[in-house]
Amino acid sequence: MTFTHKLEEALQNSESCLCIGLDPNISRIPKAIKKKYKNPEDQVFQFLKAVINETSKHCAAYKPNLGFFEALGPQGLLIFQQVLDEIPNDKIIIADAKRGDISSTAEHYAQAYFEVFDVDAVTLNPLMGFETLNPFLNDSQKAIFVLTLTSNSGADDFLARPFANQNSMAEYIAQKLSHINAENPTEVGMVVGATQARELKEIIAHHPKSALLIPGIGTQGGSIDGLKNVLDNHQGIPLINSSRSILYAGENSDRWKQEIANQAAEYKKALQPITKQYV
Amino acid sequence: MTFTHKLEEALQNSESCLCIGLDPNISRIPKAIKKKYKNPEDQVFQFLKAVINETSKHCAAYKPNLGFFEALGPQGLLIFQQVLDEIPNDKIIIADAKRGDISSTAEHYAQAYFEVFDVDAVTLNPLMGFETLNPFLNDSQKAIFVLTLTSNSGADDFLARPFANQNSMAEYIAQKLSHINAENPTEVGMVVGATQARELKEIIAHHPKSALLIPGIGTQGGSIDGLKNVLDNHQGIPLINSSRSILYAGENSDRWKQEIANQAAEYKKALQPITKQYV
Repeated sequence: MTFTHKLEEALQNSESCLCIGLDPNISRIPKAIKKKYKNPEDQVFQFLKAVINETSKHCAAYKPNLGFFEALGPQGLLIFQQVLDEIPNDKIIIADAKRGDISSTAEHYAQAYFEVFDVDAVTLNPLMGFETLNPFLNDSQKAIFVLTLTSNSGADDFLARPFANQNSMAEYIAQKLSHINAENPTEVGMVVGATQARELKEIIAHHPKSALLIPGIGTQGGSIDGLKNVLDNHQGIPLINSSRSILYAGENSDRWKQEIANQAAEYKKALQPITKQYV
Repeated sequence: MTFTHKLEEALQNSESCLCIGLDPNISRIPKAIKKKYKNPEDQVFQFLKAVINETSKHCAAYKPNLGFFEALGPQGLLIFQQVLDEIPNDKIIIADAKRGDISSTAEHYAQAYFEVFDVDAVTLNPLMGFETLNPFLNDSQKAIFVLTLTSNSGADDFLARPFANQNSMAEYIAQKLSHINAENPTEVGMVVGATQARELKEIIAHHPKSALLIPGIGTQGGSIDGLKNVLDNHQGIPLINSSRSILYAGENSDRWKQEIANQAAEYKKALQPITKQYV
């Protein structure tokens, strides 16, 4: 099954374009889990297992974030694998790795994520040049989401600045990715932040069929209404990501599982106007 | 001990500014090791242990490359830790991770490399903005090497292009890093490719005290003579990296250990004109 087909089915099955970011911050894991499990690796695994159980009917995708697993140290990738194994088969899994390197190193990153961990998609950083994407481009079952415009203030340092005769580096990247997407089996999507609505519409117009990974909803402050307008004419499927506002919805509550489930359900509901355009 | 002090001592002890990149490609590991050890994790560990033993008197630093460890899968970071444990204490260890992310994720990457794995330095990718560096800036025992100009052809897509009223994005980055370095305890160095000698001199002039990590010598084709001229007026210490041409020097030989040692010794010797400027 192609990535796009799996993505379409994931949206249909869940009736949701929600992606849940798995960013397990040890200091914010529920007390009940910390009491029951002594070591951080077990705490992270048990917490994310519960999160996945509570939220899977509300989302189309999960996005485990490698930084949080690496912070666990030598066991980090073991826990990453265990968490992957808990995610239902019909969900899209995006490894949020933001890798970017050349030649043999890039090939090894592609091997790691597309063969060994065998996730559906990976986020990539194109700064070293578009050649860094090459080892990821030959698999129609996979996707890459390339950093194009992010939702943090630091976007003004690079991605939101004029570049190569374009209004922004983001527009330049989107144009290039549109060509790369047309010429390769792998689905070439973009990471575009939800907090930059005005520029966002112009950027995605350069790559109108692009699958989109859109962080910045929730704790980062993007608006769902604004986003719906931006996406009105976009043909590619968007996944709208929320991480911390779902994971830590029940941070100080004994009913943390219920709070997490409720929060995911609320996001799903709020995203309905966008989801409906694609199912 | 500050990073800079440790770096100075590493150069003095080894009389070498050579950095050896640890990029363990399974398909190029010596047959003798593959016969003796069945699984890839053991092969990588035993190979790199031998490489470190054979080369440590010829180099100041090692640069393990995370892509190759992640390609090992769930055990990847365990092997990474085991390899770190084999590196002599007086060597600089640079985790070649090229990470770049924001807020809580960036904090977790900093925790992973500066606290949990506790290496001396990490390579970082600044595309999401200079704020991505913040969690790494508060430790005088540590350094970051930020991608500034790379030696691959894809550098022409971003880093070598005019940007923000500068001749190149690389110059813009170097200027910013010089300021960040002046204001923070962590040593803020640059990754600058050796194959772009002409531009390189202008770029490092913007950050004249910068520690430098210079790949592109050896299999990537940079020239040591050209590099010496470039570095003539530079105050920061350069580490000149070679990876594959040392690791795979004995690829098809029964005397592979000796070939690796010889190749490292040759690099050390060839780099003497540069090393002498800094010890």
